[in-house]
Amino acid sequence: MFLLNAWYVACTPNEIDDKPLGRKICGQSIVFYRAQENQVVALDDFCPHRGAPLSLGTVTEGKLVCGYHGLEMGSEGKTIAMPGQRVRGFPAIRSYPVVERYGFIWVWPGDAALADPTKIHHLEWHDNPEWAYGGGLFHIACDYRLMIDNLMDLTHETYVHATSIGQKEIDESPCKTTVEGQQVVTSRYMNNISAPPFWRLALRGNNLADDVPVDRWQICRFTPPSHVLIEVGVAHAGQGGYDATPAHKAYSVVVDFLTPESETSMWYFWGMARKFNPKDKALTASIREGQHKIFSEDLDMLERQQKNLLAHPERKLLMLNIDAGGVQSRKILEQLIAEQTAQQAAHTIPPIVPAT
Amino acid sequence: MFLLNAWYVACTPNEIDDKPLGRKICGQSIVFYRAQENQVVALDDFCPHRGAPLSLGTVTEGKLVCGYHGLEMGSEGKTIAMPGQRVRGFPAIRSYPVVERYGFIWVWPGDAALADPTKIHHLEWHDNPEWAYGGGLFHIACDYRLMIDNLMDLTHETYVHATSIGQKEIDESPCKTTVEGQQVVTSRYMNNISAPPFWRLALRGNNLADDVPVDRWQICRFTPPSHVLIEVGVAHAGQGGYDATPAHKAYSVVVDFLTPESETSMWYFWGMARKFNPKDKALTASIREGQHKIFSEDLDMLERQQKNLLAHPERKLLMLNIDAGGVQSRKILEQLIAEQTAQQAAHTIPPIVPAT
Amino acid sequence: MFLLNAWYVACTPNEIDDKPLGRKICGQSIVFYRAQENQVVALDDFCPHRGAPLSLGTVTEGKLVCGYHGLEMGSEGKTIAMPGQRVRGFPAIRSYPVVERYGFIWVWPGDAALADPTKIHHLEWHDNPEWAYGGGLFHIACDYRLMIDNLMDLTHETYVHATSIGQKEIDESPCKTTVEGQQVVTSRYMNNISAPPFWRLALRGNNLADDVPVDRWQICRFTPPSHVLIEVGVAHAGQGGYDATPAHKAYSVVVDFLTPESETSMWYFWGMARKFNPKDKALTASIREGQHKIFSEDLDMLERQQKNLLAHPERKLLMLNIDAGGVQSRKILEQLIAEQTAQQAAHTIPPIVPAT
Repeated sequence: MFLLNAWYVACTPNEIDDKPLGRKICGQSIVFYRAQENQVVALDDFCPHRGAPLSLGTVTEGKLVCGYHGLEMGSEGKTIAMPGQRVRGFPAIRSYPVVERYGFIWVWPGDAALADPTKIHHLEWHDNPEWAYGGGLFHIACDYRLMIDNLMDLTHETYVHATSIGQKEIDESPCKTTVEGQQVVTSRYMNNISAPPFWRLALRGNNLADDVPVDRWQICRFTPPSHVLIEVGVAHAGQGGYDATPAHKAYSVVVDFLTPESETSMWYFWGMARKFNPKDKALTASIREGQHKIFSEDLDMLERQQKNLLAHPERKLLMLNIDAGGVQSRKILEQLIAEQTAQQAAHTIPPIVPAT
Repeated sequence: MFLLNAWYVACTPNEIDDKPLGRKICGQSIVFYRAQENQVVALDDFCPHRGAPLSLGTVTEGKLVCGYHGLEMGSEGKTIAMPGQRVRGFPAIRSYPVVERYGFIWVWPGDAALADPTKIHHLEWHDNPEWAYGGGLFHIACDYRLMIDNLMDLTHETYVHATSIGQKEIDESPCKTTVEGQQVVTSRYMNNISAPPFWRLALRGNNLADDVPVDRWQICRFTPPSHVLIEVGVAHAGQGGYDATPAHKAYSVVVDFLTPESETSMWYFWGMARKFNPKDKALTASIREGQHKIFSEDLDMLERQQKNLLAHPERKLLMLNIDAGGVQSRKILEQLIAEQTAQQAAHTIPPIVPAT
Repeated sequence: MFLLNAWYVACTPNEIDDKPLGRKICGQSIVFYRAQENQVVALDDFCPHRGAPLSLGTVTEGKLVCGYHGLEMGSEGKTIAMPGQRVRGFPAIRSYPVVERYGFIWVWPGDAALADPTKIHHLEWHDNPEWAYGGGLFHIACDYRLMIDNLMDLTHETYVHATSIGQKEIDESPCKTTVEGQQVVTSRYMNNISAPPFWRLALRGNNLADDVPVDRWQICRFTPPSHVLIEVGVAHAGQGGYDATPAHKAYSVVVDFLTPESETSMWYFWGMARKFNPKDKALTASIREGQHKIFSEDLDMLERQQKNLLAHPERKLLMLNIDAGGVQSRKILEQLIAEQTAQQAAHTIPPIVPAT
C-alpha cells in the first residue's frame, strides 16, 4: 500500500528529451513525454487499442504516437486520431497530474482532484546562483521504507561508508529526533573532530584548510511521501559550527527523493546541493562522482536486507534510539495512508489498486 | 489451452542433423531425432528410467540412447535395451506423430489417432525451381496469438518497420477481411506509390527499375492452427499490379509458422519464398538478412505488449476494422478448441493436460 | 523436509579466512566466521537490529560486527555491544553447533542438544602422510538426492564421462548393493580390462605401466545424511585387484559431501584422496583438474533432470538393480527423517521450519 496522494519525483528532464519514458511508480506503469510547448504529460503506459506500451512510441509535433499501429494519444488521455479510424468512441486512458519544477518532473499517482502543485517541496537551490547541484538515479530492489530508515539513521556511515564519510564519532555522538507536524528531524552535532576524506575534499573545494579540527553536523529531515533532505557540513572548529559564516565552512544539502516502484523496489534520486564555490563545475563533478561511489555502497546492503526480511516476515526488528527517525517517519506515512483509505471509502471512490 | 489436434512446425531439418533436439511445444517437452533410414521421430523428452531428458543423449545406429545411463529408446516410445537390464516391463513413453515435409519437421501434439499428414499445409515453393526460399527462427516471450494479430494487421509496418517496409500508404489504404471456411484473408492494395527500401532491393533483385511508381499488395492468409502466409509484392505501376506478368513485378510469400511453447512464449519460424530470380543465392541471402532485421523489430513490442496484458487482464482491447483479421482468426481457433474439448469429453478420452 | 539432526559440510576453512561467509544450508541462512582463537562460529545470518545479513559485516578481534550499524555479535548469538546502546535486552539469534575437523567446517542445522562431534565421519587421509587430497565445490540446482542417486549408480560414467572414466565394462559388470546398518554399499569389480584415460593418468602418477590389462573396482559407500565415499582404483591385472599391494595399484577414495541448500539446490563438496605418490603436488593438481572437468559433466544432466521431475511430479521412476544404491540410501534418509519428526512431536519441541 502506497501513499498515492502525494508528489513523487518521476524523472529528470533529460530523461524525456528525445523520446517518451516508461516508468513504473507506486505499481502503476506511466509514460512521460513532452507535449506541445514542452509541457510534460504523464499517462497510463497502455495503448487503448491493443495494450502496447505507449512509451515504445514517438512524440510527433507534441502528440504521443503509439509505436505499434500509430494511434495518436492526446495529453489528457483521449485518442486524438488513428489512421483510417473514427476515434471518438475510444476509451480514455488515465492521465496523471504532472509538474516540471526545480529540475525534476513530479507526478501525483493518486486522486487527481487532490493534486495541488503548491504542495511540491520547495527546493531553494534551484536556479539560485549561490548554490550548485549535482545528482543521479539508482534503481534498488528494496522497499523504499528501508531507504528511509537508512537515511534517517546515519550511524551506518561509520560501517557502510567507512572510507569516505564514515567516522567513529558519528556512532559516539548521540542523535536527537523530533517530530514537527509531518516533518521528522534527526540531528547530530560532532565538535572538534578530524574531517573524513569526503569532507576534506569539500573543505579544499571551498579553499579551506582540510587538516585542522572541524565541527560537523547532520540534520536529516523527512517529509512525506518519502523525501529526505539532509543538511550536512563541516566548519573549522570554534567558528560557530553549523552557524559559522560561509567563509569558514563547507555547507551542503544531501538530496534524497525516494520513489516506490513496487512493494520491493524503488527509484532513488540522489544528489547534493552545495552552498560554497558554486561556479566551480569541476568541483560539482568530483562531488557527484564521490557521492555516486558512496551511495553505491548502500545498494547491496539494502537489497540483501530486503531478502532477509522477505524470508522472515515473522521477525520483529529492534527500534533503538538511532532508529527513531525511521520509526517516526513510517508512523507519519502509516497515518497518511490510513487517512487516504478512509477518504476513499467515504467518497465512495473506487480504491486505486495498482498492478504490482 | 492450445489447439492440439493440428500440425505445427517443430523445427527445421538442420536442427536434428547431428544430435537430438529438445523443444517444448504446446507445453509438452518433446525430443526430435532421426531414427533409421533418416526417419524423424518425436517422443516425450523424459527417460522412463530416471526422468533424464532424452534430448541430452545421442543417436547411435538410429537408436536414441539416454545420455545418463544408456537406455536405448525405440522410435515408438518403447525401450529397446539397457545394459544389464530386461526392459520388457518398462513403461512406454508417448510418441508423437511427426512428418518431414516441405523443408520442415511437423509435429501433431494432440490425439495421434486423428493425425492425418495430408492435412499438412501444402507449400508449393518447396523443391520448385521457380521459387527460392530463405528463413529463420525466433523465440519470443509472448502468447502466439499476439503474433497472429501482428501478422494479420500490417498497418504496424508503418510504425514498427518505418525504415524498411513501412510507408504511410499502408495506413491510408483500407484493408478487407473475409472468412472462407477456416481461412481468414485480410488484403490491401496500394496503387501508384513509391516503393519502400526493402521493395527497392527486391525490384533490383529482379532487374527492375526501383525508382518508378509501383502497385503494392499484401494478402494475409491465416489457417489453423497458426500459420500466416502473406502474399506480398510490388509491380511497376500500370502493369496489372498483383496480376502483372512476372517480368514486371517482384512477388513473394512471407512465411510465418507460429508454434506455441507455453501460454506466454512461442517459436516463430519465419521466411520468405520468392518467385523471381530464384537462382540468385546472394539475393536469397540479402533478403533473408533484411527480413531478419525487420522481424527483429517486432520482438520488443510483442514482449512488452504481453507484459502489459498480463498486468491488466481486466482490460478489454479495441477491435477495429484493421484488427478484423486477428479477431476472426482467434474466433476460428476458439471454435476448434471448443470442438476439441467436446470431442475429448464425448470419447471419454482423458483430456491432454500438458505441463506448463 | 531435510534430515536436520546431522553433520553437514558447510564450507572449507579457506572460505572464512578473511571475512564472514553467508551460506544457506537446509533452507537456513547461516553466517560462518572465525571468532577468538580461530574458533569457527555459525550463527543465524540475520542481525537482530534491522535484519541485515551479518555475513556482509566484518570480524574484528574475534567479534562479528554488523556491516550496517556496527552491532557486535558474540559467538553464542548474543549481542555483545553496539555503539551508544544498552544491548542486554536484545533478542539472541540462533547459534549452530559447528566443528572444524579433517579440513572441513561441519555444521549441525538441527537440535543443538543432540549434536555430538564424535559422530562426524572420520576421514583417515587427513593429516596422514600416506595420503594426498585435492577437491573443490560446485553449486547445483537440483535436489541433493538426485546426486546421491548419481553417485550410487556409476553406470552413468559410461555415458556422462565417456572420455575419461567411462568404459563399456562398467555397464556390463553387475553391481551388488548391501545395506549395513545406516550404510549402503554398492560395489562393482571389473577384471582384466583396459584402463580408461583418467586411470592411465593415475597409473603413470604411481610410476606404473598404463598400457597393460588392469583390474578395476568401485565401492560406493553412502552414510547419512548425504556423504558418498567411493573406493576406486586399478591394479595391474593378476596382482590381486583391490587387495594388490600398493606397488601394483593406484588406489583412491572419491569424496562426495552433499549439502542441501534448498529443496531443489545443493552444495557439492567433491574431491579425491589418493594413497599413492602422496608427495607429488603436481599430480595432486592434475588429478584435481581432471576431476573438476569430469564432475562438471554431471551438472547439466542433474539440473535438467530436476526440471523434468518438477514438471512431472506424478510420474514414477524405475528402480532397477543399478538403482538399488540410491533407493536404499533414500530409504534410510526417509526413516531418519520420520524418526526426527516423531522425536520433535514427542518432546513437544516446536518443529524447525526453515525458510525456503
